[in-house]
Amino acid sequence: MSKTRAEQTVPTRERILHAGAELFRRQGYAATGLKQIAAESKAPLGSIYHFYPGGKEQLGEEALIVGGRFFLALYEQIAKEAPDLPTAVDRFFSGAAETLLETSFADACPIATVSGEVASTSERLRRASEAAFESWLEALTDDGCAAGLPPQEARALAQQALALLEGAFLLSRSLRSVEPMDACGRAAVKLVSDALDASAPEGAPDVEGRSG
Amino acid sequence: MSKTRAEQTVPTRERILHAGAELFRRQGYAATGLKQIAAESKAPLGSIYHFYPGGKEQLGEEALIVGGRFFLALYEQIAKEAPDLPTAVDRFFSGAAETLLETSFADACPIATVSGEVASTSERLRRASEAAFESWLEALTDDGCAAGLPPQEARALAQQALALLEGAFLLSRSLRSVEPMDACGRAAVKLVSDALDASAPEGAPDVEGRSG
Repeated sequence: MSKTRAEQTVPTRERILHAGAELFRRQGYAATGLKQIAAESKAPLGSIYHFYPGGKEQLGEEALIVGGRFFLALYEQIAKEAPDLPTAVDRFFSGAAETLLETSFADACPIATVSGEVASTSERLRRASEAAFESWLEALTDDGCAAGLPPQEARALAQQALALLEGAFLLSRSLRSVEPMDACGRAAVKLVSDALDASAPEGAPDVEGRSG
Repeated sequence: MSKTRAEQTVPTRERILHAGAELFRRQGYAATGLKQIAAESKAPLGSIYHFYPGGKEQLGEEALIVGGRFFLALYEQIAKEAPDLPTAVDRFFSGAAETLLETSFADACPIATVSGEVASTSERLRRASEAAFESWLEALTDDGCAAGLPPQEARALAQQALALLEGAFLLSRSLRSVEPMDACGRAAVKLVSDALDASAPEGAPDVEGRSG
């Protein structure tokens, strides 16, 4: 911490990846040209081809991988600090609403826009977005199982919660309002809480730590 | 019905709009060029500029309007034939899953992909997607109110059900599986049914036609 981290200390490859990921998320994959990525990352165009010989598709794939890891780490951090799964879900949706407000509804899911564009046109990018979504679904499913749900139910619940989040991102960005994100957060918490209540042994007292 | 409706009997303007809307939905707005639209609609490039002097943005806007009306009409038809709101919601999700399977996961929401791309980059197109989403939310909210929900709750429920549908489209296309659509359909039906049950007068018998 003794040295200021100046812009040029971030390796060029990382700056390119970061700029590409940001542009892909905000305006989509097809709308983003390599020239714009070069300008945003303050890197010469040639260095994009140097670091990403596979061109834009390779960069798009890495952006999806990095975006997937970022959201996974964010969820895991929130889940670790929350007393229970419904609270973790509630905090994730609240954080998403805050981020939307802070960024004028530009910063949403790092995967969604590109995923929608490429699902039927680039198998390589579709697979990368699938891997990102699956990593989130697995984390949520594992936490559902750890909270006592049967695996199949935990998996369905993970899909429902993630779909609510993705749908809420889309609606909130389009309507420029966090009203859908708030409503969907409440729905996700209700679905998770109801599933946990239904799976609790009959007549058992409330599971410790889930009453807060 | 005495004459076969040959391709050339569909007016050029409509063919262009239909081709544009299909391409926007499947591969996104930015990835779709006017040349591709001309080729798909078997119309000369010049006629696109003739019918759409505002160019691609005008065409995109009309495609969002038409897509919005199409989904609204689809929902209204299903809702009219269903005995109650949970059944209507269930049938809409089932139909979405069938369409995904029939089209190799290409035909999903006519608004979503473009909406995600343009939310932060074209105010004109963002407004068009907002209007489409709002028309669906209003229809769902009206039906929730007609079924006995307070307006604010009906509005939240509409946002939750639509977010589940949009999120499920995204996940199902990316994972190439209708598993998310099925799980989200169950969640939407549960949310609607629970809300109706909670709003029913206490101690009242089940509302007629809602037990099926």
